Amino acid sequence: MIFVVFCVMKKIKLYLSSSDVSTNILALKLHGFLMGELDKSYSKYLHENKTNPYASFVYREAESVVWEVSLLNEEAERKISPILIGLKSIRLENIENNINITKLELQQLTQEDLLEIFNVDSTDHYFTISFFTPVGFKSNGEYVIFPSIKLLFQSLMQKYNRMNGQDEVDLELLEYLCKNVKIVKYNLKTYYYQVHNVRIPAFIGKISIKINGATTLKSFIKMLLVFGEYSGVGIKTSLGMGGYKLENRKK
Amino acid sequence: MIFVVFCVMKKIKLYLSSSDVSTNILALKLHGFLMGELDKSYSKYLHENKTNPYASFVYREAESVVWEVSLLNEEAERKISPILIGLKSIRLENIENNINITKLELQQLTQEDLLEIFNVDSTDHYFTISFFTPVGFKSNGEYVIFPSIKLLFQSLMQKYNRMNGQDEVDLELLEYLCKNVKIVKYNLKTYYYQVHNVRIPAFIGKISIKINGATTLKSFIKMLLVFGEYSGVGIKTSLGMGGYKLENRKK
Repeated sequence: MIFVVFCVMKKIKLYLSSSDVSTNILALKLHGFLMGELDKSYSKYLHENKTNPYASFVYREAESVVWEVSLLNEEAERKISPILIGLKSIRLENIENNINITKLELQQLTQEDLLEIFNVDSTDHYFTISFFTPVGFKSNGEYVIFPSIKLLFQSLMQKYNRMNGQDEVDLELLEYLCKNVKIVKYNLKTYYYQVHNVRIPAFIGKISIKINGATTLKSFIKMLLVFGEYSGVGIKTSLGMGGYKLENRKK
Repeated sequence: MIFVVFCVMKKIKLYLSSSDVSTNILALKLHGFLMGELDKSYSKYLHENKTNPYASFVYREAESVVWEVSLLNEEAERKISPILIGLKSIRLENIENNINITKLELQQLTQEDLLEIFNVDSTDHYFTISFFTPVGFKSNGEYVIFPSIKLLFQSLMQKYNRMNGQDEVDLELLEYLCKNVKIVKYNLKTYYYQVHNVRIPAFIGKISIKINGATTLKSFIKMLLVFGEYSGVGIKTSLGMGGYKLENRKK
Protein backbone atom coordinates (compact mmCIF):
# COMPACT_ATOMS: atom_id res chain seq x y z
CA MET A 1 0.00 0.00 0.00
CA ILE A 2 2.75 2.42 0.91
CA PHE A 3 5.88 2.29 -1.21
CA VAL A 4 9.00 4.30 -0.67
CA VAL A 5 11.49 3.26 -3.30
CA PHE A 6 12.95 6.49 -4.63
CA CYS A 7 16.14 7.69 -3.09
CA VAL A 8 16.57 11.40 -2.77
CA MET A 9 14.40 14.30 -3.82
CA LYS A 10 16.06 17.64 -4.32
CA LYS A 11 14.76 21.16 -4.21
CA ILE A 12 16.81 23.84 -5.93
CA LYS A 13 15.91 27.43 -5.13
CA LEU A 14 17.28 30.02 -7.52
CA TYR A 15 17.00 33.64 -6.43
CA LEU A 16 16.59 35.79 -9.52
CA SER A 17 17.30 39.46 -10.07
CA SER A 18 13.99 41.30 -9.76
CA SER A 19 11.64 41.41 -12.70
CA ASP A 20 8.45 43.26 -13.56
CA VAL A 21 7.12 40.23 -15.36
CA SER A 22 4.38 38.40 -13.43
CA THR A 23 5.37 35.19 -11.66
CA ASN A 24 2.73 33.41 -13.76
CA ILE A 25 4.41 34.41 -17.02
CA LEU A 26 7.90 33.82 -15.62
CA ALA A 27 6.93 30.30 -14.59
CA LEU A 28 5.91 29.47 -18.16
CA LYS A 29 8.98 31.05 -19.68
CA LEU A 30 11.37 29.42 -17.22
CA HIS A 31 9.78 26.06 -17.90
CA GLY A 32 10.31 26.62 -21.60
CA PHE A 33 13.89 27.65 -20.96
CA LEU A 34 14.56 24.53 -18.89
CA MET A 35 13.08 22.23 -21.52
CA GLY A 36 15.30 23.88 -24.11
CA GLU A 37 18.38 23.15 -22.05
CA LEU A 38 17.66 19.44 -21.63
CA ASP A 39 18.79 16.81 -24.06
CA LYS A 40 16.05 16.21 -26.62
CA SER A 41 15.26 12.62 -25.73
CA TYR A 42 14.73 13.45 -22.07
CA SER A 43 12.57 16.50 -22.75
CA LYS A 44 10.53 14.38 -25.16
CA TYR A 45 10.15 11.72 -22.46
CA LEU A 46 9.02 14.36 -19.94
CA HIS A 47 6.57 15.77 -22.40
CA GLU A 48 4.92 12.39 -22.81
CA ASN A 49 4.86 11.57 -19.12
CA LYS A 50 1.61 11.63 -17.13
CA THR A 51 3.16 12.98 -13.99
CA ASN A 52 6.38 14.90 -14.33
CA PRO A 53 9.20 13.89 -12.02
CA TYR A 54 9.81 17.54 -11.31
CA ALA A 55 7.88 20.62 -10.26
CA SER A 56 8.65 24.25 -10.92
CA PHE A 57 7.31 27.20 -8.93
CA VAL A 58 7.96 30.92 -9.23
CA TYR A 59 7.05 33.36 -6.47
CA ARG A 60 8.13 36.59 -4.87
CA GLU A 61 9.94 36.53 -1.54
CA ALA A 62 10.76 39.93 -0.07
CA GLU A 63 12.69 41.74 -2.85
CA SER A 64 13.53 38.61 -4.83
CA VAL A 65 11.85 36.42 -7.34
CA VAL A 66 12.43 32.79 -6.47
CA TRP A 67 12.43 29.95 -8.96
CA GLU A 68 12.03 26.71 -7.07
CA VAL A 69 12.54 23.46 -8.92
CA SER A 70 11.87 20.11 -7.26
CA LEU A 71 13.48 17.01 -8.68
CA LEU A 72 11.48 14.02 -7.60
CA ASN A 73 13.54 11.09 -8.79
CA GLU A 74 17.11 10.11 -9.46
CA GLU A 75 16.92 10.57 -13.22
CA ALA A 76 15.42 14.03 -13.01
CA GLU A 77 18.07 14.93 -10.49
CA ARG A 78 20.85 13.66 -12.76
CA LYS A 79 19.48 15.39 -15.87
CA ILE A 80 18.24 18.69 -14.49
CA SER A 81 20.28 19.62 -11.47
CA PRO A 82 23.62 20.19 -13.31
CA ILE A 83 21.85 22.65 -15.62
CA LEU A 84 20.35 24.63 -12.77
CA ILE A 85 23.42 24.57 -10.58
CA GLY A 86 25.59 25.79 -13.45
CA LEU A 87 23.35 28.76 -14.29
CA LYS A 88 24.72 32.28 -13.94
CA SER A 89 22.09 34.13 -15.92
CA ILE A 90 19.05 33.30 -17.97
CA ARG A 91 17.94 34.75 -21.26
CA LEU A 92 14.18 34.41 -21.75
CA GLU A 93 12.15 34.82 -24.90
CA ASN A 94 10.66 38.30 -25.31
CA ILE A 95 12.25 39.57 -22.13
CA GLU A 96 14.82 42.25 -22.82
CA ASN A 97 17.22 41.96 -19.93
CA ASN A 98 19.06 38.85 -18.85
CA ILE A 99 17.91 37.49 -15.51
CA ASN A 100 20.75 36.96 -13.09
CA ILE A 101 20.93 34.29 -10.43
CA THR A 102 21.86 36.02 -7.20
CA LYS A 103 21.72 33.06 -4.83
CA LEU A 104 21.18 29.34 -4.95
CA GLU A 105 19.87 27.07 -2.21
CA LEU A 106 19.71 23.31 -2.14
CA GLN A 107 17.44 21.18 0.01
CA GLN A 108 16.86 17.49 0.00
CA LEU A 109 14.44 14.93 1.30
CA THR A 110 15.52 11.33 1.45
CA GLN A 111 13.72 8.04 1.52
CA GLU A 112 14.79 7.74 5.15
CA ASP A 113 13.27 11.11 6.03
CA LEU A 114 9.88 10.11 4.66
CA LEU A 115 10.04 6.62 6.16
CA GLU A 116 10.89 8.07 9.50
CA ILE A 117 7.87 10.37 9.37
CA PHE A 118 5.69 7.44 8.39
CA ASN A 119 7.05 5.03 10.98
CA VAL A 120 7.05 7.34 13.96
CA ASP A 121 3.59 7.57 15.51
CA SER A 122 2.61 11.16 14.90
CA THR A 123 0.58 13.29 17.25
CA ASP A 124 0.45 16.18 14.79
CA HIS A 125 -3.23 16.63 14.07
CA TYR A 126 -3.28 20.19 12.79
CA PHE A 127 -1.50 21.52 9.70
CA THR A 128 -1.58 24.87 8.01
CA ILE A 129 -0.88 24.65 4.31
CA SER A 130 0.16 27.87 2.64
CA PHE A 131 -0.31 27.77 -1.13
CA PHE A 132 2.27 30.20 -2.45
CA THR A 133 1.35 29.62 -6.08
CA PRO A 134 -2.16 29.12 -7.51
CA VAL A 135 -3.63 25.64 -7.10
CA GLY A 136 -5.92 24.03 -9.65
CA PHE A 137 -7.92 20.83 -9.57
CA LYS A 138 -9.94 19.10 -12.22
CA SER A 139 -12.79 16.84 -11.25
CA ASN A 140 -15.25 15.19 -13.65
CA GLY A 141 -13.75 17.23 -16.46
CA GLU A 142 -14.35 20.54 -14.70
CA TYR A 143 -12.03 22.89 -12.90
CA VAL A 144 -12.74 23.19 -9.19
CA ILE A 145 -12.08 26.52 -7.49
CA PHE A 146 -12.58 25.47 -3.88
CA PRO A 147 -10.20 23.03 -2.19
CA SER A 148 -11.47 19.82 -0.64
CA ILE A 149 -9.74 17.17 1.41
CA LYS A 150 -10.55 14.63 -1.29
CA LEU A 151 -9.04 16.56 -4.18
CA LEU A 152 -6.03 17.58 -2.16
CA PHE A 153 -5.08 14.14 -0.91
CA GLN A 154 -6.13 12.28 -4.03
CA SER A 155 -3.63 14.42 -5.88
CA LEU A 156 -0.86 13.94 -3.31
CA MET A 157 -1.42 10.18 -3.17
CA GLN A 158 -1.40 10.03 -6.96
CA LYS A 159 1.82 11.98 -7.26
CA TYR A 160 3.42 10.00 -4.48
CA ASN A 161 2.43 6.67 -5.98
CA ARG A 162 3.50 7.61 -9.49
CA MET A 163 6.93 8.57 -8.21
CA ASN A 164 7.00 5.01 -6.96
CA GLY A 165 5.86 3.40 -10.17
CA GLN A 166 2.27 2.90 -9.04
CA ASP A 167 -0.56 4.37 -11.05
CA GLU A 168 -3.53 3.62 -8.84
CA VAL A 169 -4.73 5.45 -5.76
CA ASP A 170 -6.04 3.30 -2.91
CA LEU A 171 -9.63 4.57 -2.87
CA GLU A 172 -10.50 2.93 0.41
CA LEU A 173 -7.61 4.66 2.10
CA LEU A 174 -8.63 7.94 0.48
CA GLU A 175 -12.19 7.50 1.73
CA TYR A 176 -10.97 6.72 5.25
CA LEU A 177 -8.77 9.80 5.10
CA CYS A 178 -11.65 12.02 3.92
CA LYS A 179 -13.79 10.86 6.81
CA ASN A 180 -11.15 11.80 9.34
CA VAL A 181 -9.69 15.00 7.99
CA LYS A 182 -11.43 18.36 7.77
CA ILE A 183 -10.61 21.83 6.53
CA VAL A 184 -11.26 23.94 9.64
CA LYS A 185 -9.88 27.30 8.59
CA TYR A 186 -9.06 29.09 5.35
CA ASN A 187 -8.23 32.36 3.73
CA LEU A 188 -8.40 31.94 -0.03
CA LYS A 189 -9.17 33.71 -3.22
CA THR A 190 -9.59 32.73 -6.82
CA TYR A 191 -6.72 33.21 -9.26
CA TYR A 192 -7.04 32.66 -12.98
CA TYR A 193 -3.72 31.17 -14.06
CA GLN A 194 -2.70 31.94 -17.59
CA VAL A 195 -1.32 28.98 -19.56
CA HIS A 196 -0.85 30.05 -23.14
CA ASN A 197 -4.34 31.05 -24.24
CA VAL A 198 -6.22 29.39 -21.41
CA ARG A 199 -7.09 31.00 -18.07
CA ILE A 200 -7.20 28.12 -15.63
CA PRO A 201 -9.51 28.69 -12.63
CA ALA A 202 -7.45 28.23 -9.47
CA PHE A 203 -7.11 29.53 -5.93
CA ILE A 204 -4.34 30.84 -3.72
CA GLY A 205 -4.04 31.37 0.04
CA LYS A 206 -4.06 29.22 3.14
CA ILE A 207 -6.00 26.37 4.66
CA SER A 208 -5.72 24.61 7.99
CA ILE A 209 -6.71 21.00 8.37
CA LYS A 210 -7.48 18.92 11.43
CA ILE A 211 -7.05 15.16 11.62
CA ASN A 212 -9.06 12.85 13.83
CA GLY A 213 -8.36 9.22 14.38
CA ALA A 214 -5.38 6.92 14.46
CA THR A 215 -1.81 8.10 14.81
CA THR A 216 -0.90 6.05 11.73
CA LEU A 217 -3.28 8.20 9.70
CA LYS A 218 -1.62 11.28 11.14
CA SER A 219 1.80 9.91 10.19
CA PHE A 220 0.63 9.03 6.68
CA ILE A 221 -0.82 12.51 6.16
CA LYS A 222 2.27 14.20 7.49
CA MET A 223 4.41 12.14 5.14
CA LEU A 224 2.19 13.04 2.15
CA LEU A 225 2.22 16.72 3.11
CA VAL A 226 6.00 16.81 3.46
CA PHE A 227 6.34 15.00 0.11
CA GLY A 228 3.92 17.54 -1.39
CA GLU A 229 6.17 20.43 -0.41
CA TYR A 230 8.41 19.00 -3.14
CA SER A 231 5.88 17.69 -5.66
CA GLY A 232 3.27 20.42 -5.37
CA VAL A 233 -0.41 19.56 -5.56
CA GLY A 234 -3.07 19.55 -8.28
CA ILE A 235 -2.60 20.26 -11.95
CA LYS A 236 0.22 21.95 -13.92
CA THR A 237 2.86 21.69 -11.20
CA SER A 238 5.59 21.85 -13.83
CA LEU A 239 4.18 25.14 -15.11
CA GLY A 240 4.18 26.86 -11.75
CA MET A 241 0.89 25.82 -10.18
CA GLY A 242 0.30 24.01 -6.89
CA GLY A 243 3.28 25.09 -4.79
CA TYR A 244 2.78 25.07 -1.03
CA LYS A 245 4.65 24.97 2.22
CA LEU A 246 3.61 23.80 5.65
CA GLU A 247 3.44 26.39 8.40
CA ASN A 248 3.92 26.24 12.14
CA ARG A 249 2.77 22.75 13.03
CA LYS A 250 0.76 22.71 16.22
CA LYS A 251 0.85 19.73 18.51
CA MET B 1 -44.39 28.79 -7.83
CA ILE B 2 -43.49 32.42 -7.21
CA PHE B 3 -45.59 34.24 -4.65
CA VAL B 4 -45.28 37.87 -3.79
CA VAL B 5 -47.93 38.64 -1.22
CA PHE B 6 -46.18 40.71 1.43
CA CYS B 7 -46.40 44.43 1.13
CA VAL B 8 -43.39 46.40 2.20
CA MET B 9 -40.08 45.36 3.70
CA LYS B 10 -38.18 47.93 5.68
CA LYS B 11 -34.55 48.28 6.52
CA ILE B 12 -33.64 50.49 9.46
CA LYS B 13 -29.99 51.45 9.80
CA LEU B 14 -28.97 52.81 13.17
CA TYR B 15 -25.53 54.40 13.38
CA LEU B 16 -24.16 53.83 16.86
CA SER B 17 -21.51 55.70 18.81
CA SER B 18 -18.28 53.75 18.46
CA SER B 19 -17.64 50.77 20.67
CA ASP B 20 -14.69 48.51 21.44
CA VAL B 21 -17.01 45.55 21.72
CA SER B 22 -16.82 43.18 18.74
CA THR B 23 -19.64 43.35 16.23
CA ASN B 24 -20.31 39.67 16.96
CA ILE B 25 -20.97 40.34 20.65
CA LEU B 26 -22.88 43.55 19.90
CA ALA B 27 -25.18 41.68 17.52
CA LEU B 28 -26.12 39.23 20.28
CA LYS B 29 -26.62 41.93 22.88
CA LEU B 30 -28.63 44.17 20.56
CA HIS B 31 -30.84 41.23 19.67
CA GLY B 32 -31.42 40.59 23.38
CA PHE B 33 -32.14 44.27 23.91
CA LEU B 34 -34.68 44.32 21.07
CA MET B 35 -36.47 41.22 22.35
CA GLY B 36 -36.70 42.85 25.77
CA GLU B 37 -38.39 45.90 24.29
CA LEU B 38 -41.09 43.93 22.46
CA ASP B 39 -44.37 42.98 24.00
CA LYS B 40 -44.10 39.53 25.56
CA SER B 41 -46.58 37.75 23.33
CA TYR B 42 -44.82 38.90 20.15
CA SER B 43 -41.31 38.07 21.37
CA LYS B 44 -42.62 34.63 22.41
CA TYR B 45 -44.13 34.19 18.95
CA LEU B 46 -40.82 35.18 17.31
CA HIS B 47 -38.95 32.80 19.54
CA GLU B 48 -41.10 29.89 18.38
CA ASN B 49 -40.98 30.82 14.71
CA LYS B 50 -38.93 28.80 12.24
CA THR B 51 -37.87 31.76 10.16
CA ASN B 52 -37.90 35.13 11.82
CA PRO B 53 -39.64 37.93 9.94
CA TYR B 54 -36.70 40.15 10.70
CA ALA B 55 -32.92 40.11 10.41
CA SER B 56 -30.35 41.99 12.43
CA PHE B 57 -26.78 42.75 11.35
CA VAL B 58 -24.01 44.66 13.06
CA TYR B 59 -20.93 45.85 11.21
CA ARG B 60 -18.38 48.63 11.10
CA GLU B 61 -18.62 51.30 8.43
CA ALA B 62 -15.83 53.88 8.46
CA GLU B 63 -15.82 55.26 12.04
CA SER B 64 -19.28 54.02 12.93
CA VAL B 65 -20.86 50.83 14.10
CA VAL B 66 -24.03 50.17 12.15
CA TRP B 67 -26.96 48.16 13.44
CA GLU B 68 -29.11 47.20 10.49
CA VAL B 69 -32.51 45.68 11.16
CA SER B 70 -34.67 44.35 8.34
CA LEU B 71 -38.38 43.96 8.90
CA LEU B 72 -39.72 41.45 6.44
CA ASN B 73 -43.46 41.61 6.95
CA GLU B 74 -46.16 44.01 7.97
CA GLU B 75 -46.49 42.71 11.54
CA ALA B 76 -42.75 42.89 12.22
CA GLU B 77 -42.77 46.40 10.80
CA ARG B 78 -45.68 47.44 13.05
CA LYS B 79 -44.21 45.86 16.19
CA ILE B 80 -40.50 46.63 15.79
CA SER B 81 -40.06 49.81 13.79
CA PRO B 82 -41.60 52.21 16.39
CA ILE B 83 -39.14 50.88 18.97
CA LEU B 84 -36.12 51.40 16.74
CA ILE B 85 -37.21 54.76 15.37
CA GLY B 86 -37.83 56.08 18.87
CA LEU B 87 -34.42 55.07 20.21
CA LYS B 88 -32.03 57.76 21.41
CA SER B 89 -29.59 55.60 23.31
CA ILE B 90 -29.25 51.94 24.24
CA ARG B 91 -28.15 50.45 27.51
CA LEU B 92 -26.73 46.94 27.03
CA GLU B 93 -26.05 44.28 29.62
CA ASN B 94 -22.46 44.27 30.92
CA ILE B 95 -21.47 47.26 28.79
CA GLU B 96 -20.61 50.26 30.91
CA ASN B 97 -21.42 53.18 28.66
CA ASN B 98 -24.71 53.87 26.97
CA ILE B 99 -24.61 53.52 23.20
CA ASN B 100 -25.95 56.57 21.42
CA ILE B 101 -27.72 56.58 18.09
CA THR B 102 -26.05 59.20 15.94
CA LYS B 103 -27.98 58.72 12.72
CA LEU B 104 -30.91 56.72 11.41
CA GLU B 105 -31.62 55.67 7.83
CA LEU B 106 -34.71 54.06 6.42
CA GLN B 107 -34.96 52.04 3.25
CA GLN B 108 -37.79 50.04 1.83
CA LEU B 109 -38.51 47.43 -0.75
CA THR B 110 -42.07 46.96 -1.90
CA GLN B 111 -43.97 44.13 -3.49
CA GLU B 112 -43.98 46.17 -6.68
CA ASP B 113 -40.20 46.56 -6.65
CA LEU B 114 -39.68 42.80 -6.48
CA LEU B 115 -42.40 42.05 -9.00
CA GLU B 116 -40.89 44.54 -11.39
CA ILE B 117 -37.48 42.85 -11.10
CA PHE B 118 -39.10 39.49 -11.69
CA ASN B 119 -41.28 40.58 -14.61
CA VAL B 120 -38.70 42.54 -16.53
CA ASP B 121 -36.48 40.26 -18.59
CA SER B 122 -33.08 40.63 -16.99
CA THR B 123 -29.81 40.59 -18.85
CA ASP B 124 -27.79 40.79 -15.64
CA HIS B 125 -25.77 37.62 -15.59
CA TYR B 126 -23.00 38.56 -13.18
CA PHE B 127 -23.38 39.51 -9.52
CA THR B 128 -20.85 40.21 -6.82
CA ILE B 129 -22.17 39.40 -3.37
CA SER B 130 -20.30 41.01 -0.51
CA PHE B 131 -20.96 39.25 2.79
CA PHE B 132 -20.42 41.96 5.41
CA THR B 133 -21.24 39.67 8.33
CA PRO B 134 -20.25 35.99 8.71
CA VAL B 135 -22.38 33.50 6.82
CA GLY B 136 -23.16 30.02 8.10
CA PHE B 137 -24.87 27.07 6.48
CA LYS B 138 -25.92 23.74 7.88
CA SER B 139 -26.22 20.76 5.59
CA ASN B 140 -26.94 17.19 6.70
CA GLY B 141 -26.53 18.30 10.29
CA GLU B 142 -23.06 19.73 9.71
CA TYR B 143 -21.82 23.27 9.37
CA VAL B 144 -20.45 24.08 5.93
CA ILE B 145 -17.60 26.57 5.69
CA PHE B 146 -17.48 26.98 1.91
CA PRO B 147 -20.35 28.60 0.02
CA SER B 148 -22.13 26.79 -2.78
CA ILE B 149 -24.79 27.89 -5.20
CA LYS B 150 -27.12 25.25 -3.81
CA LEU B 151 -26.82 26.29 -0.16
CA LEU B 152 -27.01 29.97 -1.02
CA PHE B 153 -30.12 29.82 -3.16
CA GLN B 154 -31.84 27.09 -1.18
CA SER B 155 -31.63 29.42 1.80
CA LEU B 156 -32.85 32.46 -0.13
CA MET B 157 -35.73 30.52 -1.70
CA GLN B 158 -36.68 29.16 1.72
CA LYS B 159 -36.66 32.57 3.37
CA TYR B 160 -38.53 34.09 0.47
CA ASN B 161 -41.18 31.40 0.48
CA ARG B 162 -41.64 31.46 4.24
CA MET B 163 -42.23 35.18 4.13
CA ASN B 164 -45.04 34.25 1.78
CA GLY B 165 -46.50 31.51 3.91
CA GLN B 166 -44.94 28.68 1.94
CA ASP B 167 -42.73 26.17 3.68
CA GLU B 168 -41.44 24.11 0.77
CA VAL B 169 -38.67 24.92 -1.67
CA ASP B 170 -39.25 23.96 -5.31
CA LEU B 171 -36.42 21.44 -5.65
CA GLU B 172 -36.70 21.18 -9.41
CA LEU B 173 -36.30 24.91 -9.74
CA LEU B 174 -33.35 24.79 -7.34
CA GLU B 175 -31.72 22.05 -9.39
CA TYR B 176 -32.23 23.99 -12.60
CA LEU B 177 -30.74 27.04 -10.95
CA CYS B 178 -27.69 25.09 -9.69
CA LYS B 179 -27.03 23.81 -13.19
CA ASN B 180 -26.97 27.30 -14.61
CA VAL B 181 -25.25 29.36 -11.96
CA LYS B 182 -21.61 29.16 -10.95
CA ILE B 183 -19.34 30.82 -8.45
CA VAL B 184 -16.58 32.21 -10.69
CA LYS B 185 -14.62 34.36 -8.26
CA TYR B 186 -14.20 34.64 -4.51
CA ASN B 187 -12.17 36.10 -1.70
CA LEU B 188 -13.24 34.45 1.53
CA LYS B 189 -12.03 33.39 4.90
CA THR B 190 -13.42 31.40 7.77
CA TYR B 191 -14.93 33.17 10.75
CA TYR B 192 -16.02 31.38 13.90
CA TYR B 193 -19.12 33.20 15.08
CA GLN B 194 -19.71 33.12 18.81
CA VAL B 195 -23.30 32.43 19.85
CA HIS B 196 -23.39 32.00 23.61
CA ASN B 197 -21.05 29.06 24.20
CA VAL B 198 -20.94 27.81 20.64
CA ARG B 199 -18.46 28.88 17.97
CA ILE B 200 -20.34 28.49 14.70
CA PRO B 201 -18.10 27.82 11.68
CA ALA B 202 -18.82 30.47 9.07
CA PHE B 203 -17.15 32.53 6.36
CA ILE B 204 -16.92 36.18 5.38
CA GLY B 205 -15.83 37.96 2.20
CA LYS B 206 -17.00 38.15 -1.38
CA ILE B 207 -18.14 35.90 -4.17
CA SER B 208 -19.08 36.59 -7.77
CA ILE B 209 -21.56 34.43 -9.60
CA LYS B 210 -22.31 33.99 -13.27
CA ILE B 211 -25.68 32.93 -14.67
CA ASN B 212 -26.17 31.08 -17.90
CA GLY B 213 -29.48 30.39 -19.53
CA ALA B 214 -32.88 32.02 -19.76
CA THR B 215 -33.54 35.65 -18.92
CA THR B 216 -36.37 34.51 -16.62
CA LEU B 217 -33.80 32.66 -14.52
CA LYS B 218 -31.70 35.80 -14.41
CA SER B 219 -34.73 37.81 -13.30
CA PHE B 220 -35.63 35.25 -10.65
CA ILE B 221 -32.10 35.23 -9.27
CA LYS B 222 -31.90 38.99 -9.26
CA MET B 223 -35.17 39.16 -7.36
CA LEU B 224 -33.96 36.61 -4.79
CA LEU B 225 -30.66 38.43 -4.36
CA VAL B 226 -32.35 41.80 -3.87
CA PHE B 227 -34.74 40.18 -1.36
CA GLY B 228 -31.73 38.63 0.39
CA GLU B 229 -30.18 42.03 0.97
CA TYR B 230 -33.05 42.41 3.43
CA SER B 231 -33.46 38.86 4.75
CA GLY B 232 -29.81 37.86 4.89
CA VAL B 233 -28.79 34.31 3.98
CA GLY B 234 -28.06 31.12 5.88
CA ILE B 235 -28.47 30.52 9.59
CA LYS B 236 -28.84 32.88 12.57
CA THR B 237 -29.77 35.97 10.56
CA SER B 238 -31.52 37.42 13.61
CA LEU B 239 -28.30 37.10 15.61
CA GLY B 240 -26.14 38.98 13.14
CA MET B 241 -25.09 36.32 10.65
CA GLY B 242 -25.65 36.25 6.89
CA GLY B 243 -25.75 39.93 5.97
CA TYR B 244 -24.74 40.82 2.43
CA LYS B 245 -25.04 43.49 -0.18
CA LEU B 246 -24.80 43.34 -3.95
CA GLU B 247 -21.96 45.19 -5.62
CA ASN B 248 -21.51 46.83 -8.99
CA ARG B 249 -23.68 44.75 -11.29
CA LYS B 250 -22.04 44.16 -14.63
CA LYS B 251 -24.14 43.82 -17.72
